Amino acid sequence: MTAERWYRRSGDEGDVCVSTRVRFARNISKYPFPGRMSDDATRRLISETATALSKSEIGAHFRLVDMEQCSSLERAALVERHIISPDLAEGGSPRAVLISDDESMSVMINEEDHLRLQVLAPGLDVKKTLERARQLDEVFDRELGYAFDEKLGYLTKCPTNLGTGMRVSVMLHLPALEEAREIGGVISAAGGAGLTARGIYGEGSAAEGSLYQFSNRITLGYTEEEVCDRLEQVARQIIEREHTLRRRSLESDREGVEDRVWRAVGTLKYARRMDTSEALRLLGEVRVGASLGILPTDCGRLNELLWAVRASNLSLSAGKELSPSERDRRRAELLRGIEEGSFKI
Amino acid sequence: MTAERWYRRSGDEGDVCVSTRVRFARNISKYPFPGRMSDDATRRLISETATALSKSEIGAHFRLVDMEQCSSLERAALVERHIISPDLAEGGSPRAVLISDDESMSVMINEEDHLRLQVLAPGLDVKKTLERARQLDEVFDRELGYAFDEKLGYLTKCPTNLGTGMRVSVMLHLPALEEAREIGGVISAAGGAGLTARGIYGEGSAAEGSLYQFSNRITLGYTEEEVCDRLEQVARQIIEREHTLRRRSLESDREGVEDRVWRAVGTLKYARRMDTSEALRLLGEVRVGASLGILPTDCGRLNELLWAVRASNLSLSAGKELSPSERDRRRAELLRGIEEGSFKI
Repeated sequence: MTAERWYRRSGDEGDVCVSTRVRFARNISKYPFPGRMSDDATRRLISETATALSKSEIGAHFRLVDMEQCSSLERAALVERHIISPDLAEGGSPRAVLISDDESMSVMINEEDHLRLQVLAPGLDVKKTLERARQLDEVFDRELGYAFDEKLGYLTKCPTNLGTGMRVSVMLHLPALEEAREIGGVISAAGGAGLTARGIYGEGSAAEGSLYQFSNRITLGYTEEEVCDRLEQVARQIIEREHTLRRRSLESDREGVEDRVWRAVGTLKYARRMDTSEALRLLGEVRVGASLGILPTDCGRLNELLWAVRASNLSLSAGKELSPSERDRRRAELLRGIEEGSFKI
Repeated sequence: MTAERWYRRSGDEGDVCVSTRVRFARNISKYPFPGRMSDDATRRLISETATALSKSEIGAHFRLVDMEQCSSLERAALVERHIISPDLAEGGSPRAVLISDDESMSVMINEEDHLRLQVLAPGLDVKKTLERARQLDEVFDRELGYAFDEKLGYLTKCPTNLGTGMRVSVMLHLPALEEAREIGGVISAAGGAGLTARGIYGEGSAAEGSLYQFSNRITLGYTEEEVCDRLEQVARQIIEREHTLRRRSLESDREGVEDRVWRAVGTLKYARRMDTSEALRLLGEVRVGASLGILPTDCGRLNELLWAVRASNLSLSAGKELSPSERDRRRAELLRGIEEGSFKI
């Protein structure tokens, strides 16, 4: 039996906040740093990590996925679902990921650091996500022993991760801020509060579908709680502003907003081919429609579609590598069929 | 009981040819020419014309509409439905129109000439339409006596109508010719064959919704049959070319054509407001979809919408003068509701 996937649940502020993520960068003290390890040592690291997890209570709900056994399609699909990073997918040496049944937790092995622990949750849920990440963290510290320095904190390959080794982020859907041209100001204000804004797939990726990832820039000199509180505080302000602008546009032109939302529904239900960027834009309109009570849609149901419409997941679900035009067709097919599944209209 | 309106039937080549129209310009010999008549004389002309028609067999199916008793909205709505000309709607002196129950025949009284007889038919139907126009014509010639000259033919106010006094036209939907940028060539070739191309509301109007009216330019020196044959011949060539291009685009990119058609359906079924120009464009896509067998739509059912979506008919059906934004809302409402009525999807 498959556990219910994390992204099918709706979370706090789920109409704006797609997800919260906490990630820890960790290295095992008894191994040389990644890049200085032999393939054999790396394979031992993988096997030891898996064993360590299996000894713990939560370990029963994980499976080990060996990157060298995966097709490039399967790896790309995992990247699209935010389970692994592009670096892990593309790396050359032995590497693997442990994935929880509900896909909310993953442990990348031999990415930039020995371990990259990640916990995802729907909506805005910083504290609980941090809590769960710590539970996972303790398992490996106990079983394997982390490289830790009293002054520098967790030792990481890249100095920007020193200290807590933690990156906490929220994925926000901000079409109203974009439309009001306030997004630039919001991003720079977030920068002043120590946060970085990125696109949907992290560093260097574009903010497709009005989706922005906000994460802490600094890991050294603050406690995990301080960093998490700061992020949550800023996120709540951004979400509130997005809500205000959405409501304001509804008040000033209800019919215009309804028109946009319903046209998006009409196109999603009838188009015969669609590219990713249009799909994300239209799903964004549906999300806004749900947020404003125009559509009786559960935003949680929309999260899954954010990656289900992407190239590799479309190919994976088709069982073969699809050409761009085949993907456009399959994407439209998928979206036409969501009436019963993912949003009621 | 209301007779079934002419535009609800589908005609020959109905997927490209919306309608055929024959119009006769006639003057009654015993009256001074229009413009030189007193209002009293004009009112006598109106009453005599109505009486003449009522004596004939077909006269039972006509009603007299006095322009001076109509609101400007009602007059504009009649123009949109092609029952009267803008000149009749806007003229200052007494004027009227006799309209058949099915709206296929009308007799404008005191437009540019004493009488303007008009017969409309769905699809390409030149010969039968000419035949029906002649039957109507005979009624007034017999009862009132036309101004006729052996050499000049029917005497009309404007010399461009001398001779037969006949204007025959077809309304063609030519989106594929437009898209292939062949429309300019087609119009100039038609010009070489003595035909003029105009927009949906005649002289000076734009070719909205890819709709073009082709009519004879010359009325003197040819018989009615010659002019009609010529028009039909050219129309058939244009229609054939439009069909060829539609089929060709289907062959080269079936999915793309289907995508456009179904997106149009989706937008028509879900939009909350829509302007006339978008409505005509989307209804045009539906017409093409029906033409190519993508939609099981009867093109005859679409003809009515060509004027039902227009400003004055929308206001008239609402029972009051609507503002532009109210019209956009009502137009979208009308189009959302057509599933059962006018095209099945």
